[in-house]
Amino acid sequence: MYIDGKEYRALWLENNIVKCIDQRKLPYSFEIFTAKTTDDVAFVIKHMVVRGAPAIGAVAVYGMALGKKNVENAAEMLQATRPTAHDLFYAIQYMKKEIDKGSDAFEAASRYVDDIVDRCKRIGEHGNQLINDGMRVLTHCNAGALATVDYGTALSPLRIAHRNNKKLFVYADETRPRLQGLLTAWELRQEGIAHAVIADNAAGYFMKNGDIDLVIVGADRIAKNGDTANKIGTYEKAVLAKENNISFYVAAPKSTFDLSIKNGTEIIIEERGREELSEINGKTVMPAWTLVKNPAFDVTPAKYITGYITENGIIKKP
Amino acid sequence: MYIDGKEYRALWLENNIVKCIDQRKLPYSFEIFTAKTTDDVAFVIKHMVVRGAPAIGAVAVYGMALGKKNVENAAEMLQATRPTAHDLFYAIQYMKKEIDKGSDAFEAASRYVDDIVDRCKRIGEHGNQLINDGMRVLTHCNAGALATVDYGTALSPLRIAHRNNKKLFVYADETRPRLQGLLTAWELRQEGIAHAVIADNAAGYFMKNGDIDLVIVGADRIAKNGDTANKIGTYEKAVLAKENNISFYVAAPKSTFDLSIKNGTEIIIEERGREELSEINGKTVMPAWTLVKNPAFDVTPAKYITGYITENGIIKKP
Repeated sequence: MYIDGKEYRALWLENNIVKCIDQRKLPYSFEIFTAKTTDDVAFVIKHMVVRGAPAIGAVAVYGMALGKKNVENAAEMLQATRPTAHDLFYAIQYMKKEIDKGSDAFEAASRYVDDIVDRCKRIGEHGNQLINDGMRVLTHCNAGALATVDYGTALSPLRIAHRNNKKLFVYADETRPRLQGLLTAWELRQEGIAHAVIADNAAGYFMKNGDIDLVIVGADRIAKNGDTANKIGTYEKAVLAKENNISFYVAAPKSTFDLSIKNGTEIIIEERGREELSEINGKTVMPAWTLVKNPAFDVTPAKYITGYITENGIIKKP
Repeated sequence: MYIDGKEYRALWLENNIVKCIDQRKLPYSFEIFTAKTTDDVAFVIKHMVVRGAPAIGAVAVYGMALGKKNVENAAEMLQATRPTAHDLFYAIQYMKKEIDKGSDAFEAASRYVDDIVDRCKRIGEHGNQLINDGMRVLTHCNAGALATVDYGTALSPLRIAHRNNKKLFVYADETRPRLQGLLTAWELRQEGIAHAVIADNAAGYFMKNGDIDLVIVGADRIAKNGDTANKIGTYEKAVLAKENNISFYVAAPKSTFDLSIKNGTEIIIEERGREELSEINGKTVMPAWTLVKNPAFDVTPAKYITGYITENGIIKKP
């Protein structure tokens, strides 16, 4: 991704030290966090210096490389940070095997990270075929370079289209409760893509008005039948897209497809704390007595999804 | 409405002085604002001490009564506060006529206000027929007593049902950008009705989950064919209700029906400033560079609306 005209990844290795864009500070300020030890990397994951499943996996492989002298200890320390993250678990297992078989740990870690970036880039190249010059595209949440090391999933086709000189306008749902739409806006701004942040309530209005040609979102998990778990609100936008005859695509690497799950009913939705609604960037915006229900994700049935943009091409069914 | 167990209106007359609940302070604190002159009432309207079209009309008739010694001057002063408010214009004309024909100004004003309250109460009584014991109801924005002097429009059926000992649970959309859902939560809490505030993104999730039995919203303007302009996001929730086979009702007095407008395409939607998204209760929640599009209302086509709850009964077509 471009930041102030310079190419960046969400995290990288520099003289065997891990550097990451501090996502706790974004989009309010741009700061680099330095992690010199596995301990530091555990902090990075736990305190969301880095967020987004693929990016967490990426920083974890570097954390394993930093802790290669005591692999079991490093694995345990990293595992304990966010125990439910699938990518984290996968990344740790990958590094254990590589170190076991005598690979250079930093090289193995970098191969893992490069592979993520490569898949995201290919998602962008395939998705780019869906984008015509002048299109107005809606996205929800942040499925961008910050969450995936580079390119992003949903944002990758937009990035590639823009770099191919297609004119675009992106509507970014602000994505309450956590306002990840602001991270999307930050990435689009850095890339030079025209955009506006809208209240989640306004997405339907713009669709009905004929202002949106295409919707692209990311995914947390895709079941065998194509039902897709993603940030809360994705289901709403998918239903509205269908009602207004607008194509609705899910962009995700193959690793997001969980073929062990038959359909969306098997996906358990996490309810999170009230502070996600009542506080924004540390500022209290609701009275203390406010009662809240806060489901973090929803499941969009496959029937609302036009297709899936993967690193191997665009598919209609998983 | 009940507040700390005592009956209140959003505004009232006390020894020929106007008292209003200061809605600028809600839901964070409860304060009474005193308006002794037409000037004070103009301030009340202009600075949104009182908000909601019917409540603005109500405070305006009192403002005219306070200014009865110089009717033209009072009318001009009040008119200038929020020049596009239809109820305000109507209220001023009503008082001009009453004062002209020699009515007691305070009595005439009180008749006007009592009439609003009576219509809202009847909306509640008719709407109550739609509500069964144990129902879970979604509402959007604040169409409550604060906006209509007492009872509310969308909230009136819930209030009456609750006072008739029906068990209820209300989902209140937080209603970004301005979070009027917090005013709804405040009213429900004062009335003792079980409820939760949800992100607007979560309404579809709860509908699909079978957690919502009925949707009731207010309206800003209803066209001859039933198309309804209301707070941004109403259209989204209506489409989702239809998709999930949930009844979607609009509660509004006859005065909200504008038979001079054939359908929703004739209703111009106001775009408002970015600060409505970027600031909450005076606190900045988005970076200064954030670009925003902020349509304040949307139009829900009649085909998504099950019926209209009016003071004269429930109708299927206006």
